[in-house]
Amino acid sequence: MFKAKVNVTLKKSVLDPQGQTVKHTLDTLGFKETVDVRVGKYFEVSLNAADKTQAEKNIKAMCDQLLINPVIEEYTYTLAEA
Amino acid sequence: MFKAKVNVTLKKSVLDPQGQTVKHTLDTLGFKETVDVRVGKYFEVSLNAADKTQAEKNIKAMCDQLLINPVIEEYTYTLAEA
Repeated sequence: MFKAKVNVTLKKSVLDPQGQTVKHTLDTLGFKETVDVRVGKYFEVSLNAADKTQAEKNIKAMCDQLLINPVIEEYTYTLAEA
Repeated sequence: MFKAKVNVTLKKSVLDPQGQTVKHTLDTLGFKETVDVRVGKYFEVSLNAADKTQAEKNIKAMCDQLLINPVIEEYTYTLAEA
């Protein structure tokens, strides 16, 4: 079995109001040294696959078809045998 | 400047209905080999700090005071100079 960890963020060019709100709240709490905050989503997907190549192909297909909005989001992932 | 990447997930013992919904949808799309999906949050925090130890201390404090609900969530993070 493989375990994929997928991090999804808004593209750099897209405004992130949620991140700005978190940054503002951190400022209020006294964390003045915070420069920027971006908020995204995180998926942990466990899946069966014959080998790592197959698992990787499937994870990319899942991202493209469901997990990601390619217009405004981008993603990175790590894949390991579990 | 340092950049911290914080992954937040529900604790293993906590039911994750959003993850179950994603898993069900992946099944519907034909990804039958998916075993489990957990959905969480992802924060990218850029911050200034004198050294890595200080940055790490600040990130932990941010998580404890704002980013995480310690009752139902747990987190992992990576920290690197940016």
